[in-house]
Amino acid sequence: MCTAFTLTDSGFYMGRNFDLEYSYGERPTLTPRNYPFLFTDGTVCAHHEMLLGMAYVRDGCPLYYDAMNESGLVMAGLSFPGYAHYEKAEPGAGKVAPHELISYVLTQCKSVSEAKTFLRDKTIADIPVSADLANTPLHWFIADRRASLAVEAMDNGLHLWDDPMAVLTNAPPLPFQFDRLRDYRGLSPDAGANRFSPRMPLECYSRGMGAIGLPGDFSSCARFVRAAYVKENTVTEPTPDGCVNRVFHILDSVKVPRGCVRTEEGADTATLYSACFDVPRGKFWYETYDEPARRCVSFSDAGAEREVTVF
Amino acid sequence: MCTAFTLTDSGFYMGRNFDLEYSYGERPTLTPRNYPFLFTDGTVCAHHEMLLGMAYVRDGCPLYYDAMNESGLVMAGLSFPGYAHYEKAEPGAGKVAPHELISYVLTQCKSVSEAKTFLRDKTIADIPVSADLANTPLHWFIADRRASLAVEAMDNGLHLWDDPMAVLTNAPPLPFQFDRLRDYRGLSPDAGANRFSPRMPLECYSRGMGAIGLPGDFSSCARFVRAAYVKENTVTEPTPDGCVNRVFHILDSVKVPRGCVRTEEGADTATLYSACFDVPRGKFWYETYDEPARRCVSFSDAGAEREVTVF
Amino acid sequence: MCTAFTLTDSGFYMGRNFDLEYSYGERPTLTPRNYPFLFTDGTVCAHHEMLLGMAYVRDGCPLYYDAMNESGLVMAGLSFPGYAHYEKAEPGAGKVAPHELISYVLTQCKSVSEAKTFLRDKTIADIPVSADLANTPLHWFIADRRASLAVEAMDNGLHLWDDPMAVLTNAPPLPFQFDRLRDYRGLSPDAGANRFSPRMPLECYSRGMGAIGLPGDFSSCARFVRAAYVKENTVTEPTPDGCVNRVFHILDSVKVPRGCVRTEEGADTATLYSACFDVPRGKFWYETYDEPARRCVSFSDAGAEREVTVF
Amino acid sequence: MCTAFTLTDSGFYMGRNFDLEYSYGERPTLTPRNYPFLFTDGTVCAHHEMLLGMAYVRDGCPLYYDAMNESGLVMAGLSFPGYAHYEKAEPGAGKVAPHELISYVLTQCKSVSEAKTFLRDKTIADIPVSADLANTPLHWFIADRRASLAVEAMDNGLHLWDDPMAVLTNAPPLPFQFDRLRDYRGLSPDAGANRFSPRMPLECYSRGMGAIGLPGDFSSCARFVRAAYVKENTVTEPTPDGCVNRVFHILDSVKVPRGCVRTEEGADTATLYSACFDVPRGKFWYETYDEPARRCVSFSDAGAEREVTVF
Repeated sequence: MCTAFTLTDSGFYMGRNFDLEYSYGERPTLTPRNYPFLFTDGTVCAHHEMLLGMAYVRDGCPLYYDAMNESGLVMAGLSFPGYAHYEKAEPGAGKVAPHELISYVLTQCKSVSEAKTFLRDKTIADIPVSADLANTPLHWFIADRRASLAVEAMDNGLHLWDDPMAVLTNAPPLPFQFDRLRDYRGLSPDAGANRFSPRMPLECYSRGMGAIGLPGDFSSCARFVRAAYVKENTVTEPTPDGCVNRVFHILDSVKVPRGCVRTEEGADTATLYSACFDVPRGKFWYETYDEPARRCVSFSDAGAEREVTVF
Repeated sequence: MCTAFTLTDSGFYMGRNFDLEYSYGERPTLTPRNYPFLFTDGTVCAHHEMLLGMAYVRDGCPLYYDAMNESGLVMAGLSFPGYAHYEKAEPGAGKVAPHELISYVLTQCKSVSEAKTFLRDKTIADIPVSADLANTPLHWFIADRRASLAVEAMDNGLHLWDDPMAVLTNAPPLPFQFDRLRDYRGLSPDAGANRFSPRMPLECYSRGMGAIGLPGDFSSCARFVRAAYVKENTVTEPTPDGCVNRVFHILDSVKVPRGCVRTEEGADTATLYSACFDVPRGKFWYETYDEPARRCVSFSDAGAEREVTVF
Repeated sequence: MCTAFTLTDSGFYMGRNFDLEYSYGERPTLTPRNYPFLFTDGTVCAHHEMLLGMAYVRDGCPLYYDAMNESGLVMAGLSFPGYAHYEKAEPGAGKVAPHELISYVLTQCKSVSEAKTFLRDKTIADIPVSADLANTPLHWFIADRRASLAVEAMDNGLHLWDDPMAVLTNAPPLPFQFDRLRDYRGLSPDAGANRFSPRMPLECYSRGMGAIGLPGDFSSCARFVRAAYVKENTVTEPTPDGCVNRVFHILDSVKVPRGCVRTEEGADTATLYSACFDVPRGKFWYETYDEPARRCVSFSDAGAEREVTVF
Repeated sequence: MCTAFTLTDSGFYMGRNFDLEYSYGERPTLTPRNYPFLFTDGTVCAHHEMLLGMAYVRDGCPLYYDAMNESGLVMAGLSFPGYAHYEKAEPGAGKVAPHELISYVLTQCKSVSEAKTFLRDKTIADIPVSADLANTPLHWFIADRRASLAVEAMDNGLHLWDDPMAVLTNAPPLPFQFDRLRDYRGLSPDAGANRFSPRMPLECYSRGMGAIGLPGDFSSCARFVRAAYVKENTVTEPTPDGCVNRVFHILDSVKVPRGCVRTEEGADTATLYSACFDVPRGKFWYETYDEPARRCVSFSDAGAEREVTVF
């Protein structure tokens, strides 16, 4: 369970909540330029931009949950249970493992348009990180200032869906979310007129009644609609700091408070971290569930040239 | 538009969002012990505990939006449009003006039980702050660790409703909110079984589907249900800092993002500040919409004895 | 559980569904003019109009569930569990038993206006039909072509609420239903514009999407809103037969199919009968759950002068 | 806009509402055995069972809206706007026109299983009835006592979806309806426990609260869920007449009252007719919006051998 979205009306920002019931010890992580990646399909990538985002670093290699590169391409992996289908495949050209897909794309593409072409002939292969760490079902959100894309590998193939709403949550697949979004087409910050009956005034008892029907639960569909609604209606902020604030306010509206969602096994799913990719300034802002202070890491914090920095 | 609630399962905390489309310049404000209050009904109150909360200070006198005293009694005023009815009355004994009610109660009562008795023969009178500042329609939330109360002055009299859910938002009156809450009695963090039909598996496509039906809009009713749901289900935090965090997470779930609610006049209502009354430690924590850093003022910050301190 | 409403835009018609899990053997029943009623408060009523409606006839005396008189005053009793409060009272002037209230009013009043005045000083007293038949919790709907009234006896007194929507279902009390109806003020047969976002077209995938949010369950609140919506929007029929059809179409929209609502004891509540009071023609139309043919009884079917006729 | 479903727990029955804003003059129509059909793909079908259902008869040829054959295979065409895609094709083997699909299948197949195989290599071709009568966008429901099928011709091919819920309404495609149905998996005729909070009793104020969340509007999604809910929960009737009644009660729950749904052009969509295919007795029962009396036509009403009979 996760939520990702972008704002493009004043600069370019991606927000993302990471919702899970346990942590792998993910940390803000900066990969320097030209850090040598050896991908499972044999690709050696030794010339690339810096990557910055949240990662679980294993054996010195960053497995990104979300990241941006210096060209302003951002990408996030989100849970996609029941639908993600990775092909059983021997390693080979174009067979990418799910855990490396973000690095794979962000080191080789500078825009959504490039990523779309690049991914067309690739296969998401069921190659685990290691014998003890199976792949989790994921789909991906890729965005730049001009466009957004959802990457969904399912049993009927790899889908690269244009995402004009620039929101992604979880299952079912994105086309379902879009069809469903139409149910909410009448919602608005404005109360609107009484269309029910002239027989009674039916005046508003509260502000905000024009959005009655907006779902408030924490399922993927509800978070999709709510993120889209809040994103579409929050006012454009003129300053970069205002934009970052706005991203976190949107993230707060779809945050999962600990205890409000329980797995079948009785574990509590919660928003372990909320992050804002501040692309114009090359900054990664984040808050964790238990440490409310907003913190920041920046491309300019890069240390030794060939070393991944974990903050 | 506002939301207030308390947590009592580990210490005693009140959370409150203040949602409005303009600010009067309210600031965290500490009133020292025995600061002389002269209330409009003639009461002179020169012996009382410290008061700490958010206030608009006018002519040196704090008009509290919310506050606590040292005994652990907390109180907040919330918008109550269309229902609040203040009696047209000449000043006189027991005639209290709405803008002073919080100071009036918190200087003279140490518990909800005392406040309930104390208010029984009082009248909320339509006495404005001054010629240029009319009263706004309000109702009040009063709570201590043992009980909560809603004070609603309406055209059929002054009501002191017990509030076992320990949540208050806005109109309609509290009994309506309680009746309506029953519609949501089946919601839960657990998904529950497929009760619809054995003909199809109808498996969950997402975690959190046991709370489908929870309203997500920003009207008073939706915020009441959502605050109650999140409050009831968030896990008890063992540390005071964890409790404060939890209060802010709950407040975030009912926060009004700027742009999502518009008045008839086209103004944007937003959560101007969020506050947590940390009663065990005598601290007042707050965040504002535009300045995300959480800040704190404490009873121990009291300055000169007879001077109201605005932070 | 029951639903009642009137149509007044072309003639005057009352519709009512009677929803219960068992039947007392109620039958269409015509009381002739001047049939002597002896009410429990001592009133002897020997001069009155004919009454026609559904009744359980006990010891030759009709206990009406709903009825009309010749002046065009109609009245129905509906279940009001959890709220109805009948006063513990010795029989005496103005103490009316619930089971006789319909006869009591329809024999002595010719209009809603008269009924309102008439009932003002009456008491609904907890006087059972007999030792073996306790009172059920009821409230009443009284209507003529000009106005509608809900009569609710609660622990805080007897309330005569004006009912401008001309609908009544069950608990909670009518003012709650009215407050709640405001939530649905935006619903309409017209789809309306996409107000959600210009970012996607969000075209309608179906007709009828302007009423998304209309509740479809069988609780009293849902039936209140749905009956009001369907009543307000169905087109005016020019002929009396068309009006009767329209009433049954509205009743069908709030009918309880057997099996869809279960009591705590496991019994199935269903719409045992649906009835239309065709006031202009003095006819009572009805259908039962198990016999779909619509049948009719009319004032002109009156038999022997002093005998209640059960059809 | 239409709704179709089957009941299979006691005999085999199909119910269908036909919702539109205008009528082509459709009438109950019986096609005798071996009436010679010449289909547009060149197939001459001169040996087949009787067909009975609702049709618009044009130039002596029945264009069925819904029908059954003597083997107990039933089929209905329902509106599928925005998704139906008929191939631009010259007439030829296996190119079937939408308006003849029901006759085409019911004369050549005796079961869903046969129909599924039979349709696999067919193409729904955009061949109009005549120059003046374009095709309307349709999808089809095919059912027998053992299984149900939805036939959806879209721009990505012809889909034959298994329909275990045995309900079909309109757009979006059936897989969307199934995904969405999962949102309602907790609904039940039983109220269930208070899972919200132990802090307040939150007792039911009405029966039927276990189904709160069931949509009540008239869009295709709402009718799908409501038909499924009512169908799944209505009690099995032991007699054939009871089964027919049950079908009409279910149809009533998704009936569109005239005035409650308006097209963009301002026309009123309504349920022009409701029909029950009583397969065990070979009877077709129907009611129209304006003539409430239920009527019946039977296979045994067949007249002259080679003549289509319009009732």
